[in-house]
Amino acid sequence: MTDASAPADQVFLRRHNLAMVLRDLRDHGPRSRARIAADTGLNKATVSSLVAELAELGLVRDGDVERGGGVGRPGQTVEIDGRICGLGAEVNVDYVAVLVLDLRGDELRYVRTPLDVPRLGVEKTLDELAAAIAAAVDDAAAQGHDVAGITVGIPGMVETAPGVLRHAPNIGWREVRIADELAARVTGPATTIRVDNDANLSALAEYAVGTSAGTADLVYVTGETGVGGGVISDGVLLRGTEGYGGEIGHMPIGDPAHRCGCGKLGCWEASVGLAALLREVADKDDPVTDPSVDLEVRLAEIRRRAALGDGRTLRGIEAVGTALGLGAAILVNLFNPRVIVLGGYFAALGEFFLPAMETELDKRVVAPARGGCRIELSALGFTAACRGGAHVALEAVFTDPAAVGLSAATSIPSPLPGGMT
Amino acid sequence: MTDASAPADQVFLRRHNLAMVLRDLRDHGPRSRARIAADTGLNKATVSSLVAELAELGLVRDGDVERGGGVGRPGQTVEIDGRICGLGAEVNVDYVAVLVLDLRGDELRYVRTPLDVPRLGVEKTLDELAAAIAAAVDDAAAQGHDVAGITVGIPGMVETAPGVLRHAPNIGWREVRIADELAARVTGPATTIRVDNDANLSALAEYAVGTSAGTADLVYVTGETGVGGGVISDGVLLRGTEGYGGEIGHMPIGDPAHRCGCGKLGCWEASVGLAALLREVADKDDPVTDPSVDLEVRLAEIRRRAALGDGRTLRGIEAVGTALGLGAAILVNLFNPRVIVLGGYFAALGEFFLPAMETELDKRVVAPARGGCRIELSALGFTAACRGGAHVALEAVFTDPAAVGLSAATSIPSPLPGGMT
Repeated sequence: MTDASAPADQVFLRRHNLAMVLRDLRDHGPRSRARIAADTGLNKATVSSLVAELAELGLVRDGDVERGGGVGRPGQTVEIDGRICGLGAEVNVDYVAVLVLDLRGDELRYVRTPLDVPRLGVEKTLDELAAAIAAAVDDAAAQGHDVAGITVGIPGMVETAPGVLRHAPNIGWREVRIADELAARVTGPATTIRVDNDANLSALAEYAVGTSAGTADLVYVTGETGVGGGVISDGVLLRGTEGYGGEIGHMPIGDPAHRCGCGKLGCWEASVGLAALLREVADKDDPVTDPSVDLEVRLAEIRRRAALGDGRTLRGIEAVGTALGLGAAILVNLFNPRVIVLGGYFAALGEFFLPAMETELDKRVVAPARGGCRIELSALGFTAACRGGAHVALEAVFTDPAAVGLSAATSIPSPLPGGMT
Repeated sequence: MTDASAPADQVFLRRHNLAMVLRDLRDHGPRSRARIAADTGLNKATVSSLVAELAELGLVRDGDVERGGGVGRPGQTVEIDGRICGLGAEVNVDYVAVLVLDLRGDELRYVRTPLDVPRLGVEKTLDELAAAIAAAVDDAAAQGHDVAGITVGIPGMVETAPGVLRHAPNIGWREVRIADELAARVTGPATTIRVDNDANLSALAEYAVGTSAGTADLVYVTGETGVGGGVISDGVLLRGTEGYGGEIGHMPIGDPAHRCGCGKLGCWEASVGLAALLREVADKDDPVTDPSVDLEVRLAEIRRRAALGDGRTLRGIEAVGTALGLGAAILVNLFNPRVIVLGGYFAALGEFFLPAMETELDKRVVAPARGGCRIELSALGFTAACRGGAHVALEAVFTDPAAVGLSAATSIPSPLPGGMT
């Protein structure tokens, strides 16, 4: 802002107000222009003009006629149009997945493709992922939808600005330019591609639509092969200076006898990750340790044994629950969250973990009454990262609706195809 | 905002623009109205009107005549007026202190009063602190200054919204309504009193004026009787849901043989706090362990021995440095800060700690190149918490300059004397 003659503040105000109207409709549902004016403090003429601009961008449309009871005369309501979509994609140890949400938050598509990612390697996995994304984009287009942005979750350390994965030990990837590689593979209109850590995206999904949606201080902890974390602090995802924040798996509080996927001894992940649970509850020839059996089937079997009161299963879960509480107490002391949401296998077996975990938390948290923190089990299952990715793509629309006019809505190629905003 | 007829956005915009002009002068120094217009993108007539309003509030005044070379004609400059002040106060284990900064950031007063706070107890300590605050306010008034706000730092868990200290183990205080107690003791014009954890305030001071000022992701770690932490994440102090965030001292990564002030075994604080250092470097009858000798004198003696190559001193510092690195690695993995600033006794002996600490960090941080994190020694010494408190009080003025007109500038009592904003 160096040109004193440009009315920079007016342009800013207009875009800010467009976003305010669109978010009002998202947060409070369809409503008349008069109610939007009442909600936002804008005058009615301004609201009408903003609604017209949003309609031209394909973001809102006329809804039902209001039945009265609200502020002002009953009248024509405005509602969010579902034409614009966000796409979330995920690479994990044994699958890639794609999920599409429209601007109304409705799920249009979720496809999970089983893959042995560590064995398949970078190139072929990204080919598969690109094919899954292209199929989802084509399918959306066939139904009259435009994909406004794509966000990819990866179980590793991602430098978000250039969209580069630095290291994902559990799939064996290092230094992969995910955004560029996908942009080169996905044909069609130029679309912004973002890349992020999968647990960060899951935390954003919990914040957007989980059982604790809207909780400004929320820590997401997921147990899979690795242990991932995503932190929402005062309503904002904590990324840190290079995007590596939330690496919770390697706190040196685990049993020093066990080696972590990162190569070190005594990491928390080596005491609470999936391998640790399986080691505690089963012998090596037990089918619940067989990686060729679907994880959800194996977890159901462990849950069945626990429900039947099997001693080894219960003792194993308790040991992991105590170790989970020890690390969770550090997170509570550092972040003072209102809620810790457990995802992955922690959610699947949560009812059995919780007593030991909560006992340890109560012992270890220094703030009174645990600083007001509760523990919750995620209800999003294995879609969390994908869902968070789709929300990130849509959030860009809610933050600056006018920008849609520069990409998907008019199919003008972005000046930075495949780049980051 | 429920009244559709009120031009809420225009009022907001005006206050926003007042703040933008005032911050432009703070961040870039005295300048002409034309340059302010160029900096902010506002037009010149608007800037003139905003400057007039700020001058009426006593926040800006005419400065020197510009010598040319800038944008537009040379002309009369505007600069920040130092009349309005912020006051920071601190309670610690062996002193209370008060520091006053004017709106230009100049220090008007720093007074530290030695006190045996744990022995003196709550009532008498707060009497002493209130007297020190009153003396500072009177002194400021005698010089034509107005104190716009007071912020008190306490070494414990503070619920910031009501200004209540929950628990400060190292001074033995529990459940003290600091804001109310001080408001009842400090006479004179009603002034907003805020209360916060001392390490949080120190982190804010580092962010405002430390050697890494302006670094958006900064973790402050201080070693005193306790070990305190304050986290700046994306430019904002991480508080958590009830204000207890940044409790770093009780991570269970210490030697399980040592008991912490909190009563538990194996806390990080029990391995890196001042008592741990003294245990490592000296016998019980060594004068460096004598609490009646000023801490800075004792630290100077330890530094002297280290510089002379004394084996026990160097081994002790190395052991503490390694333990410091172990915990710092957790902080780096979780927060991915650009810098960790060491305060308290860590800063005083920092050059001797750093090699062992950095070796441990390099071993333990999972992000490449330590996630871009450097370690720095605070240059603010024991004034950090007070200084941060004064900045917090001033920041309220920079955020909403017009609010000054409602309190100090016109001496209209606040509707919530002693309350929190």
